[in-house]
Amino acid sequence: MTAIDKGIRAHIEEKAIKAKKAAKRLRQVTKNEKNEALYTLADHLERNMRLILTENKKDTEAGRDKGYDEAYIDRLSLNEERVHGFAKSLKEVAELDDPVGETLSAWTLDNGLKAEKVRVPLGVIGMIYEARPNVTVDAAGLALKSGNAIVLKGGSSARHSNQAIVSVMHEALAGTNIPHDAVQFIGSTDRSAAKELFTMKEHIDVLIPRGGGALIQEVVEHATVPVLETGVGNCHLYIDREADAEKALSILINGKTDRPAVCNALETLIIHETWLEENKNALITALNEHGIRVHGDEKAIRFIPDAKPADEADWRNEYLSLDIAVKVVSNLNEACDHIETYGTKHSEAIVTENKETAKAFFSAVDAAALYHNASTRFTDGGALGFGAEIGISTQKLHARGPMGLNDLTTSKYMLTGNGHIRI
Amino acid sequence: MTAIDKGIRAHIEEKAIKAKKAAKRLRQVTKNEKNEALYTLADHLERNMRLILTENKKDTEAGRDKGYDEAYIDRLSLNEERVHGFAKSLKEVAELDDPVGETLSAWTLDNGLKAEKVRVPLGVIGMIYEARPNVTVDAAGLALKSGNAIVLKGGSSARHSNQAIVSVMHEALAGTNIPHDAVQFIGSTDRSAAKELFTMKEHIDVLIPRGGGALIQEVVEHATVPVLETGVGNCHLYIDREADAEKALSILINGKTDRPAVCNALETLIIHETWLEENKNALITALNEHGIRVHGDEKAIRFIPDAKPADEADWRNEYLSLDIAVKVVSNLNEACDHIETYGTKHSEAIVTENKETAKAFFSAVDAAALYHNASTRFTDGGALGFGAEIGISTQKLHARGPMGLNDLTTSKYMLTGNGHIRI
Repeated sequence: MTAIDKGIRAHIEEKAIKAKKAAKRLRQVTKNEKNEALYTLADHLERNMRLILTENKKDTEAGRDKGYDEAYIDRLSLNEERVHGFAKSLKEVAELDDPVGETLSAWTLDNGLKAEKVRVPLGVIGMIYEARPNVTVDAAGLALKSGNAIVLKGGSSARHSNQAIVSVMHEALAGTNIPHDAVQFIGSTDRSAAKELFTMKEHIDVLIPRGGGALIQEVVEHATVPVLETGVGNCHLYIDREADAEKALSILINGKTDRPAVCNALETLIIHETWLEENKNALITALNEHGIRVHGDEKAIRFIPDAKPADEADWRNEYLSLDIAVKVVSNLNEACDHIETYGTKHSEAIVTENKETAKAFFSAVDAAALYHNASTRFTDGGALGFGAEIGISTQKLHARGPMGLNDLTTSKYMLTGNGHIRI
Repeated sequence: MTAIDKGIRAHIEEKAIKAKKAAKRLRQVTKNEKNEALYTLADHLERNMRLILTENKKDTEAGRDKGYDEAYIDRLSLNEERVHGFAKSLKEVAELDDPVGETLSAWTLDNGLKAEKVRVPLGVIGMIYEARPNVTVDAAGLALKSGNAIVLKGGSSARHSNQAIVSVMHEALAGTNIPHDAVQFIGSTDRSAAKELFTMKEHIDVLIPRGGGALIQEVVEHATVPVLETGVGNCHLYIDREADAEKALSILINGKTDRPAVCNALETLIIHETWLEENKNALITALNEHGIRVHGDEKAIRFIPDAKPADEADWRNEYLSLDIAVKVVSNLNEACDHIETYGTKHSEAIVTENKETAKAFFSAVDAAALYHNASTRFTDGGALGFGAEIGISTQKLHARGPMGLNDLTTSKYMLTGNGHIRI
């Protein structure tokens, strides 16, 4: 470790320790104190619109200079409407039920010892994310509402925007009962800065990486702090032999084209060979109309003009574009085996009119969300009715699928006796 | 990586892949098939008593040759009663409610999409543990009951016993509808063998280390597979100014002496100075009667004869013996701050007749289990009424405190539509 690295570690540790101290105080704040703080944050962000937009312009201009594509610049860009959106979403979070203090279970043991399991905050959340500045606001809001402190490490391309947003949040919190140290921001653009967070087990209770596969992989590989993995979605749609063609095509087009760059978009289409023979023309028309580019297996290429041959990478990776991999199968098992091999356990769909086939698919496929005759695009906290989400978990521990406020909490057993000892 | 290391990795990966295939089948077995298998396992273990005891003798003799202490040899030793105990505990697990398939929530969205959240098995559990051969039986039983496959890596000192138990289990499973590959055992005594498991993210869903702090630390540092941390308990008892002396001393003696080597035993005593002044003689008598050795801070040493001065290690480490660290404080905050600094978030107790003080302690202290006027020894799945446990989680994600069958499961969202797309 060089002297500079040591300097970075000390700098980040100082922030993590401040967050931990704030978390200790947050264990004892009331629901009203938290909600008032969220409204104050919303108000201050709107009142500092000009500062935020000015700083954001520095990021978008730097991004254009670096030759980032327009889709990337769009994710980075703020405008008046988006900043009002920040305020609106903070107010919505304030209106959600407070998860902290909920009695999860209560019982009395035969010996008279009274037991209660109560929901409490996790403590300190480490959030590591990429371009979108809205994550800075959303993550801080959800953390505070659930009684947690948060250490934010945003992408360097949004650093001016994030810095401005955090300084406004700090100013706002200074006028509330929430310690302003509850929101910490790591401004260093050094990539090794994020890595320092990964091993601060003494101070950080959970790491949540949000971004591309490479970022998530890096966190998982280097972290000793527990990680909530989010986001990589290699989602499949299986069109069964008994699928209704209209439903199948509508769900395919929605899954692939509605927002191709998000994790619940479709990446691979698996088609029963008989359905394909019978519905070839309608499928080709739909794909062409929406500009979808096919990478197919041997059989698919025979049916679909202009299809390129698919290789291992096509089955494995997220395109996040209008490309799709297509595999033709002769039964449900083949479809499930392909998903077992290549899926990322995010969202998987089947279209079929046969309920037994759908049931078998639901039972065989291991993923956070399974769909029968519906689009994978519904895997989203808002769409499923959970309110705001901090990410979509693709792991099996703690939380699976869209994560809301409850997933930012843990529990405590509280036991009350009268001199009880174990004999 | 040397050629030998590669050989070990390939050998272990083969077992992990077998477990994963078995896990796929286990998703679809019935409650009755699992229970029948558990009864069959119980029966076969009892019928192969002679083999198990003969093999166990090899381990205990080797342990004596190596100069292990009697407490260690005792943990390693099996006898007829203990093997009958294996069978009994497997039957008890069979009688527990089956967690798999439970509907955790169900709702219909405004658009008519039907949603259900259902409990499902985790998949493949990697269990890494030390001397006790009973963990082999208990972990396999809990894994099967919750529909999971398991890869067992036991300590080398129990290798003959574990190998015998697993071979009996394999033979037993061959006569059931549960694939015998659901239980995998890594016989290699090479310490690097366990490490290979740590990074098999493709095949293993969760690692559960059970053993001393060094083992757990090693897993946490090297694993990319998610870990359920168990066990290290630096547990504190705070005797408040308003503590009843009889309750305080009885809880102290129970916590320290009932089973000093377990994780819910007391390691540090924090005493309010006024209480100490008033109850000095009774405390000294109790400590002496039970052979408890005190490592005290400056004030404690002044009051307690024969006490040695405590250093940083005394506050931080588990003694797992009749030693105890003693700190004298002048208020509750000092006690809570000490626990915040040195506690492992396992079990923490307060003795006081003042309910408000107890409430403040429960709110301020961050741990899996908090006790008011009761012994920390109750932090145990059996004692709290959960049935068998796979370990006691000291982390905050997924499970906190004693982990039972539910904690070996995850969930799936199942969504049923009629051509639903997101617009």
